[in-house]
Amino acid sequence: MEWFVEKYDGSGIMIKVKKKIVEVQSLQKIEIYETENFGKMLVIDGKVQLTEFDEFIYHEMLVHVPMMIHRDPREVLIIGGGDGGTLREVLKHDVEKVVLVEIDEKVVELSKKYLKIDHGAFEDKRLEIVVEDGRDYVNYCKKFDLILVDSTDPVGVSDPLFGKDFFEVAKDKCDILCTQAQSPLIQRDLFLKIWKFSKVFGKRKVYLSTIPTYPFALWAFVLAGDVDNFYPERFEKIRKKVRHYNLDVHRSAFSLPGWLRDVLEQR
Amino acid sequence: MEWFVEKYDGSGIMIKVKKKIVEVQSLQKIEIYETENFGKMLVIDGKVQLTEFDEFIYHEMLVHVPMMIHRDPREVLIIGGGDGGTLREVLKHDVEKVVLVEIDEKVVELSKKYLKIDHGAFEDKRLEIVVEDGRDYVNYCKKFDLILVDSTDPVGVSDPLFGKDFFEVAKDKCDILCTQAQSPLIQRDLFLKIWKFSKVFGKRKVYLSTIPTYPFALWAFVLAGDVDNFYPERFEKIRKKVRHYNLDVHRSAFSLPGWLRDVLEQR
Repeated sequence: MEWFVEKYDGSGIMIKVKKKIVEVQSLQKIEIYETENFGKMLVIDGKVQLTEFDEFIYHEMLVHVPMMIHRDPREVLIIGGGDGGTLREVLKHDVEKVVLVEIDEKVVELSKKYLKIDHGAFEDKRLEIVVEDGRDYVNYCKKFDLILVDSTDPVGVSDPLFGKDFFEVAKDKCDILCTQAQSPLIQRDLFLKIWKFSKVFGKRKVYLSTIPTYPFALWAFVLAGDVDNFYPERFEKIRKKVRHYNLDVHRSAFSLPGWLRDVLEQR
Repeated sequence: MEWFVEKYDGSGIMIKVKKKIVEVQSLQKIEIYETENFGKMLVIDGKVQLTEFDEFIYHEMLVHVPMMIHRDPREVLIIGGGDGGTLREVLKHDVEKVVLVEIDEKVVELSKKYLKIDHGAFEDKRLEIVVEDGRDYVNYCKKFDLILVDSTDPVGVSDPLFGKDFFEVAKDKCDILCTQAQSPLIQRDLFLKIWKFSKVFGKRKVYLSTIPTYPFALWAFVLAGDVDNFYPERFEKIRKKVRHYNLDVHRSAFSLPGWLRDVLEQR
């Protein structure tokens, strides 16, 4: 195979691959490729989850924005994120406990063995891995400071994380929830579903980033709960450990273009 | 043909097309397609120039950012931009004169006839169209308030617009020059070439936008000259005429991620 192709509604992306490193069918079809120009690439159920080339943008934006907004994030729940990238970023802060709930243990196993973007984070003593559906876990878990939803697209195993009842339960299990929220341009229905359900948290905000290897790249995150603070002084702690995130990028991420403001106001 | 494919270094994009509306070989190979989901699409020498779906983002960001920074832009030179999108945005402001210098008159002709994204701007009395290489035109033209370079990629006919001597001549022909500057992620050499040559203007800035149908979407613009002002009150004039640009978007566009600051500091 020379080109990996991911098609979505009327468009698609192509990534030139050198070889397929591994393919496993577990709950999902998991593939890891060595690409020509973008390092290793993780694909789940035919969709690009990350490339080594640009995963730092997605993971830094998912993690550091809410971490810098919470007044004192010590205990963090990651739902999904079996590749370890989100975990790696969370551990750059002074946290005491991270629980990673991944429904598909094969994602963790193959990521540890072949992808290695966790940079050792999977060995951290503050980490507990739970193999379970995140939707079920939040039913009985204790309260966290922060919940980060680092899911695949809301088809297949991730679908419950995009449902109304997930948000209703999660609201009592954290101060702030932050979820990747798909493309507001070409997956507007999914994005708006998340926006609508997050309303149970009271306050919420949308922020944006450009993730080059995601469909049409403009990506939304929804932040819900106690979202009005910002502790820029805490940036010193992570300054030398990040490549994309900085205080300007943080503030700018909340600037929404006219068309997106219009979409949100209509809901 | 079902899918239009544009490949670049190790990656590519695919756009599903319904039909090819026209194909003409002039100085360049010009194609206009009707796509499945993104309206009409203009392709020059195999590269997507715009789709109706997202062209407003590119054109608003190329035009309104410099227009709101110049103290009083009355006379504007557009180099390239034969599709009429940049012209359409410029004419939303109180300008007195716009010269559009397009090397390939077929781009204008086919855009007027089939693309129609100018929304009548080609008929505006303030417009003068000059069919010439923009590089040559700046040698003898009078001084403008603003020069906007809306070029194709720097291969083929656009190459002279990315050369050192263009910037040296253009410096004396405007207060501010703003040029699209390719992808700082995957076309970094080209981007840095523009950045380097723009140094003759003295002050310059980079700003970013996400243009979904461009390679990897994260797109750079270089603004050079008298770039330190900002006249937000002027936004009232265009508020109801724009879909993407607003004052928050303007300010945020100059927030550069860590990796890009590092790249610029090394030059």
